[in-house]
Amino acid sequence: MRQTVPVYLASASPRRREILSMLGIDFTVEVSDVDETVEETEPGSIVETLAERKAEAVFTRINKGDVAVIGSDTIVWKDGKVLGKPVDRADAERMLTELSGGINTVYTGVCIFLRKGNTVVKERFHCAADVEFAPMSDEEVRWYAGTGEPMDKAGAYAVQGLGGRFIRGINGDYYTVMGLPMNALYEKLRKIGVLLAETRS
Amino acid sequence: MRQTVPVYLASASPRRREILSMLGIDFTVEVSDVDETVEETEPGSIVETLAERKAEAVFTRINKGDVAVIGSDTIVWKDGKVLGKPVDRADAERMLTELSGGINTVYTGVCIFLRKGNTVVKERFHCAADVEFAPMSDEEVRWYAGTGEPMDKAGAYAVQGLGGRFIRGINGDYYTVMGLPMNALYEKLRKIGVLLAETRS
Repeated sequence: MRQTVPVYLASASPRRREILSMLGIDFTVEVSDVDETVEETEPGSIVETLAERKAEAVFTRINKGDVAVIGSDTIVWKDGKVLGKPVDRADAERMLTELSGGINTVYTGVCIFLRKGNTVVKERFHCAADVEFAPMSDEEVRWYAGTGEPMDKAGAYAVQGLGGRFIRGINGDYYTVMGLPMNALYEKLRKIGVLLAETRS
Repeated sequence: MRQTVPVYLASASPRRREILSMLGIDFTVEVSDVDETVEETEPGSIVETLAERKAEAVFTRINKGDVAVIGSDTIVWKDGKVLGKPVDRADAERMLTELSGGINTVYTGVCIFLRKGNTVVKERFHCAADVEFAPMSDEEVRWYAGTGEPMDKAGAYAVQGLGGRFIRGINGDYYTVMGLPMNALYEKLRKIGVLLAETRS
């Protein structure tokens, strides 16, 4: 694969950096603070709108040359409402108790702004995946909240860390749960020409 | 969580080491060469039998003191047959072409031998997860086989590496596909007392 333009990732998340690296892309992290208030109520629209806002802020700031900017946003959806990042340890324990023994849905939205010459392309999409939690005892909830891992995570858990032990299974794309849908992003980057095939023997 | 006995992992796989580390377990890697010929034809039985053989070889060698030995085996199952590790690049390309655009099932078997005092416990189980491949072009098959990543992997792919871009989704436990079912293993280790709760404030 050959990358045709410089790529910026409009997110500071280490998980997103890791996934983009697995796609073999060289990129620069550039983060903008954006207003995270949205009027949308449908989870797919919420994450697409926030992903677009993040990507657009960085794209506007760069404002010259051939470039692709990737923005992304992830929420956890349970019983018709958004679980955000916990504000404190008690909030994390409350969210984990709510997730214990049930299924939640993770939505990740992605927006790519691409400029090549005089052409600007915008692509936005989202993916969803169901996550099944094992039943957690009160002691497990307290232990996991106490590790600190939940504190900067939407829904108060990380599927790829200490939290993995409580995940029974996933229906959908694992990388959507981590924060960036790898296969869907790869296909879009090929489609709009950020990644090109190289002929190899 | 508190670990009550020394743990040995009867596998050299870096993926299995990573998963066991995520469970917070201190362990030693100790590998035995075992005969991988089996009479079983049912995929769950195949991986359990091989996992038990690997664990038993190491457990027998240690032969004293309180200890837990974990063995594991993973196969990729497609259209009623096992896809093993490819023998060469052409074999990897053939397997990938077979997996492209379809669903395969990954089976991982686990066997734990535990000795505490005069008591020996053996636990064996397996988990299965479906993996959906995006359709791969001939060029993508050649590119991926050429990266070398498929060469030491059952079924010629890694879900967690460069191969992740071709995975549409998973139905089941992601860690089963990586080679060790984290949640099921965690629950067994708690059940048989290798991991105990710690009271925390």
